[in-house]
Amino acid sequence: MSTFTLAIHGGAGTILKSMLTPELETKYLQGLQQALDKGYEVLAQQGSSLDAVKAAIMSLEDNELFNAGRGSVFTKKGINEMDAAIMEGTQLGGGAVAGVRNIKNPIALAKEVMLHSGHVMLSGNGAKEFALNRGMEMAPDEYFFTKYRYDQWIEIRDSDFYQLDHKEDNLKGMPSQEKKFGTVGAVAVDMNGHIAAGTSTGGMTNKRYGRIGDSPLLGVGTYANDATCGISCTGHGEYFMRAVVAYDVSCLMEYKGLSLQEACHIVVKEKLVKMGGEGGLIAVDALGNFELCYNSEGMYRGVRTSEGINKVAIYKD
Amino acid sequence: MSTFTLAIHGGAGTILKSMLTPELETKYLQGLQQALDKGYEVLAQQGSSLDAVKAAIMSLEDNELFNAGRGSVFTKKGINEMDAAIMEGTQLGGGAVAGVRNIKNPIALAKEVMLHSGHVMLSGNGAKEFALNRGMEMAPDEYFFTKYRYDQWIEIRDSDFYQLDHKEDNLKGMPSQEKKFGTVGAVAVDMNGHIAAGTSTGGMTNKRYGRIGDSPLLGVGTYANDATCGISCTGHGEYFMRAVVAYDVSCLMEYKGLSLQEACHIVVKEKLVKMGGEGGLIAVDALGNFELCYNSEGMYRGVRTSEGINKVAIYKD
Repeated sequence: MSTFTLAIHGGAGTILKSMLTPELETKYLQGLQQALDKGYEVLAQQGSSLDAVKAAIMSLEDNELFNAGRGSVFTKKGINEMDAAIMEGTQLGGGAVAGVRNIKNPIALAKEVMLHSGHVMLSGNGAKEFALNRGMEMAPDEYFFTKYRYDQWIEIRDSDFYQLDHKEDNLKGMPSQEKKFGTVGAVAVDMNGHIAAGTSTGGMTNKRYGRIGDSPLLGVGTYANDATCGISCTGHGEYFMRAVVAYDVSCLMEYKGLSLQEACHIVVKEKLVKMGGEGGLIAVDALGNFELCYNSEGMYRGVRTSEGINKVAIYKD
Repeated sequence: MSTFTLAIHGGAGTILKSMLTPELETKYLQGLQQALDKGYEVLAQQGSSLDAVKAAIMSLEDNELFNAGRGSVFTKKGINEMDAAIMEGTQLGGGAVAGVRNIKNPIALAKEVMLHSGHVMLSGNGAKEFALNRGMEMAPDEYFFTKYRYDQWIEIRDSDFYQLDHKEDNLKGMPSQEKKFGTVGAVAVDMNGHIAAGTSTGGMTNKRYGRIGDSPLLGVGTYANDATCGISCTGHGEYFMRAVVAYDVSCLMEYKGLSLQEACHIVVKEKLVKMGGEGGLIAVDALGNFELCYNSEGMYRGVRTSEGINKVAIYKD
């Protein structure tokens, strides 16, 4: 096997053409292409799928258009708290961080947790302490301040609404036009057939209570296994957690013998729909097959393969 | 179906008869029986499996012998940080808390998160704020102070060792005799065939960095689904997370048609052993079948059924 494939997403939800100006649409597509190219370059230079996933996600984290890293949304307290996870499918190694602040690239910290902490998941100030001990790149609060996210927050700050959430009651009357699940992710298979997956997010605008969603949870928002697939999810985190989405796709392949496409379809378009869980996922298998699967109006997404496929998209095909 | 079953655990690990005095052994067995009876009483009075699981776990949390609630171990900073999760198998509802302090019964808070937060998982100070808003019972630091746990901590405080962990390097030279994974849990099926599962823990002695283990993660340390099984795990959390243990048992039943016993055996005695993951789990299915399965030297455990089975045990049978 000498082919390789990289897929990315920048979140799913009610993304309609009428909601984006042509200029903004172009910026999103450029941001997706840039991230895709960063990750693809790693694979083309015979790098690992783990490094490709990290490179692609760092690019999305550094882009203030996406709700992760720099562009993270504000919590109820007006701060940025981020989650991320990364996993490699050969040894089933994984690392994750939850509720971290002032970390420039949470996905890089997740990889550091995987390789050097002796643990899988670190949270809050403890995760930050680990980051400082490991010499990770930090960033001041101002780095994470983006006018767009701040305005978003101000708009709903004094309400009990939280945006990007699943409760109908909490969306009713919400001023924002856009019901969007802001998360970024990448999955890749390299020329050695090794699979990796990663996810990073700033969570929900105006979130409270140290809420942890599906993104940093191995088997839920992020999973990789060379024997089956690599998965990164975006959507109503609470539903994804109850459905153990990423590992469900893997088990349908491993235990029922389904193809990547069949397994993704059943989980996203049947099981999640039945529960009421909106969102999507990106997936690859060891043969280089890929799926960009969602049950929402749109998903910021892209895929590039050694076979020449190279595309980015936002709305429904 | 009018039978019902409850199983509990109080942690697994290297628990040898030579390590417990006869007095301490009796206390452990009494504590297990007490928790078993509390939960069984709920089921016998036609209560739900969810309430039975909560009652059994609260009893173990209130008992300072077990590493959860009152008996929680000390972190590197000399404080108690607890995790818990609960799930019901009818609607696949779930709630979890991670890194909480001063909550008398974390399992009760997990249930409150499930029913009233609109989220699945809350952490740290945010989870505490939610608990206060909901009027949950709090407890001062002194409540969680137990001489035994404090001495345990003092013994390894100034080292880089953390107890109850999986890294060989971190156990080498560790003063403690006992490699034990302190967690408590319960699984139950009620007379309506509804399944529930819960897990609660104080984590590892001398833990750092806001480490989150498998206990509060749905699909990993805790899972319930009326169509398959209810599971609560105890062991080297990091391995359990990478193996998505609880949902793996469920998928082996659902997708491969294995029995509860076969599925538990494959995951605990084959897959986890191959990875190097020590520990065990308790499980029930909708028919009232149960499994108390572990690959370690011992597991504090008990089971009581409407068919008349009623036993508690510590060492290998």
